[in-house]
Amino acid sequence: MEEKIVFLNEDGRPNAEAVVQMMEEKQFSQLRELLSDFPAADIAELFLDIPDDKDPLLFRILPKEMAADVFVEMDTDAQERLLYSFSDRELGEVFSELYMDDTVDIIEEMPANVVARILRLSPPEARKQINELLKYPEDSAGSVMTTEFVRLRKDMTVEEAFLAIRRVAIDRETVYTCYVTDEGRRLEGVITVKTLLLSEPDASLSEIMEENVVSIETHADREEVALMFNKYGFLALPVVDAENRLVGIITVDDALDVMHEEAEEDFAVMAAVTPTEEPYLRTGVFRIFVSRIPWLLILMLSATFTGMIISGFESALAACVALTAFIPMLMGTGGNSGSQSSTTVIRGISLGEIEFKDTLRVLFKELRVAVLCGICLAAATFAKVMLVDAYLMGNPQVTPTVALVVSLTLLVTVVAAKLIGCILPILAKQVHLDPAVMASPFITTLVDAVSLLVYFAVARTFLGI
Amino acid sequence: MEEKIVFLNEDGRPNAEAVVQMMEEKQFSQLRELLSDFPAADIAELFLDIPDDKDPLLFRILPKEMAADVFVEMDTDAQERLLYSFSDRELGEVFSELYMDDTVDIIEEMPANVVARILRLSPPEARKQINELLKYPEDSAGSVMTTEFVRLRKDMTVEEAFLAIRRVAIDRETVYTCYVTDEGRRLEGVITVKTLLLSEPDASLSEIMEENVVSIETHADREEVALMFNKYGFLALPVVDAENRLVGIITVDDALDVMHEEAEEDFAVMAAVTPTEEPYLRTGVFRIFVSRIPWLLILMLSATFTGMIISGFESALAACVALTAFIPMLMGTGGNSGSQSSTTVIRGISLGEIEFKDTLRVLFKELRVAVLCGICLAAATFAKVMLVDAYLMGNPQVTPTVALVVSLTLLVTVVAAKLIGCILPILAKQVHLDPAVMASPFITTLVDAVSLLVYFAVARTFLGI
Repeated sequence: MEEKIVFLNEDGRPNAEAVVQMMEEKQFSQLRELLSDFPAADIAELFLDIPDDKDPLLFRILPKEMAADVFVEMDTDAQERLLYSFSDRELGEVFSELYMDDTVDIIEEMPANVVARILRLSPPEARKQINELLKYPEDSAGSVMTTEFVRLRKDMTVEEAFLAIRRVAIDRETVYTCYVTDEGRRLEGVITVKTLLLSEPDASLSEIMEENVVSIETHADREEVALMFNKYGFLALPVVDAENRLVGIITVDDALDVMHEEAEEDFAVMAAVTPTEEPYLRTGVFRIFVSRIPWLLILMLSATFTGMIISGFESALAACVALTAFIPMLMGTGGNSGSQSSTTVIRGISLGEIEFKDTLRVLFKELRVAVLCGICLAAATFAKVMLVDAYLMGNPQVTPTVALVVSLTLLVTVVAAKLIGCILPILAKQVHLDPAVMASPFITTLVDAVSLLVYFAVARTFLGI
Repeated sequence: MEEKIVFLNEDGRPNAEAVVQMMEEKQFSQLRELLSDFPAADIAELFLDIPDDKDPLLFRILPKEMAADVFVEMDTDAQERLLYSFSDRELGEVFSELYMDDTVDIIEEMPANVVARILRLSPPEARKQINELLKYPEDSAGSVMTTEFVRLRKDMTVEEAFLAIRRVAIDRETVYTCYVTDEGRRLEGVITVKTLLLSEPDASLSEIMEENVVSIETHADREEVALMFNKYGFLALPVVDAENRLVGIITVDDALDVMHEEAEEDFAVMAAVTPTEEPYLRTGVFRIFVSRIPWLLILMLSATFTGMIISGFESALAACVALTAFIPMLMGTGGNSGSQSSTTVIRGISLGEIEFKDTLRVLFKELRVAVLCGICLAAATFAKVMLVDAYLMGNPQVTPTVALVVSLTLLVTVVAAKLIGCILPILAKQVHLDPAVMASPFITTLVDAVSLLVYFAVARTFLGI
């Protein structure tokens, strides 16, 4: 007798082993019954935890009305495996249940032969819409929107509007924000179900709709989508073409995904990693390696310059070897100062707070912060060098002049690092590079070189070496 | 004659100078008319751009029904200034229009005397709710929720439900997701307005409600709130107490704010900056200085150890000064390798993908990635040192053995850095520290010391110095 595995995990989600066991014992209808109680996202997670070859069977066990929702939540690899196992009828059924924007998201990730099959099995009207959505540039508002929304006319009464909403609701991702358009599909107003609920049944939409509609153009960057949701707290944002014709809407859950992906991208780029979409634990070792090694190589080779600078001062260093001991601290503090500024400015740019016209304000602000930080750090260093290196460790080479050289270098380095750190992201943005590239790793490499040049120049002046 | 300033900026938002000019020319009703067309967030931005002493006047010009919405969107400083200028009646009017969670957010930022005044002017029932909300720990789900939601009973029909919704809609932040509770206020089900619209008027809620409700406890971390919205795509999430009694809901726009703040906090901590809430351009120089200097000081002083390591090997370095030139490259590449791993793992933890039980899997994955990266970088370095330093620059001290020492050190450093980088954030989380603290600056400082120790050990072995 096999031991019965408990169906629920501690976190209240279905246990993968229990599910597999029930499948093996062919308790299909009981399993269907049990699974029908869970949100689609939890079921999709199950597919990650059961063996890959069990995916098709589990998917067929799911209640019909749930299958499409679960499919959307699955990761790309699992979707692809399932698509290969689907009959044409199954594939048609799943995709006919999907919202248009989810269909397009899936298609964008699939290999060409799968895409061809999906398009072949879609009804002509859907195929046309899919093709149109696929045309929008990646990362544009058009590529995130859905074409399924509720469209009303301003001569409708509230009662008629409710009838219209009821008629189409089942196929629409959101019904709570409805859009009023004229015959030319131009956006005239917006009205929420809440307003409709609070109005008299015979009121005309033209009286109660909000005419000042905030919208976004199809070609706007999707970063702007995230900013607008953040600012206005919408449930949906209308997307219009160049003639102000309403072509789609972006719902708040898609905006959430965009924000999430944008933040992940920034994090990755700032750590000098090529962004990947898969969760870490499911990404292969080689793929992680490929996402990291180019940056390491580039940064390593650019560190050659710092090496050259040191080589150029070998004789000076030989004359006063004690100077070498302060190199890591100078480079480290410079790098940290620079990346504080660059991260702050990079985020400011991402959030639309800092623009090119603010360059001088940012520079002036960073200059003042840098001078304060620099003086503070230089004083601390002077005290520390005299106390620890000269007095406690009794290094005869560490004279007050050496302490002064180190402190002075630190002051200049911190100021230079903060100015470099704040200006480079702004310049990168201006030449249409991702400002996040100008984060810690890059700034540090540059600041390393600067700090060494300053160090040796100051040392030469004061110590005459 | 003064020149007339155009009322709209290029971006379609009201121009601050034009607004000030109209205020000075006492065109109050025209201005009110013009402003009533803009979203509250745009008006709130106006308050940033006009002189502070004009704030109270502009606020009084706003249409009454708009004032509270605008007030919520303003930044804390402007809110505080306005509160001081309000009469008791004005203050009461604004706060009676606010949703409970917004009230609490504002109160949390205000000085004690202002808070006392707000509480004194609130009706007793509101005061009680405010006090309860204020009791939840900062960063808990309870502190983000609102107590104003639609509560239904399961013996209601669809028609009765719509009546109930209509009755309370005006005061509720969202009506689209309604909650079904029993007499003990325990959560029994959830139903959306979309489902209600699609159901027959005489259907009973008990038949059509969704009984499997995903909810969160009041004391759960607000990070979890963000994760749940990301995973399930909700419009609202019910918050329950330990006895599964419904005490509030979190709406998607508040979840968006939470996600946004959590990401900003991570960015700040990872750049070794104390997070501030104000936008960069509006934060004072001294406040920026204070948010940065402690980290710089700590990191600088911890770099003392690297200095000590170098001092300890001064004689070895004096024997082969060429070795000094490779120190920045070794430390830099080590630091970059480590921060790639730490950033990836920090994000994985934030997103709930990596937990303590995954430690070994993460370590093993990073080990393999590190060996691949290490071999690749070591080979590139060996080639570069022999070609550039030995051959092109003709440095007689740079022998193949030196190149080997540098390459070998690099390999070991990269492996050590990646292991340190992935394990520290996990350990930090385990002892309830913010994993983001283990980002680049900290990892770099630690890896610097490790790489130097390895370097000198390897050099000693191979070069006999």
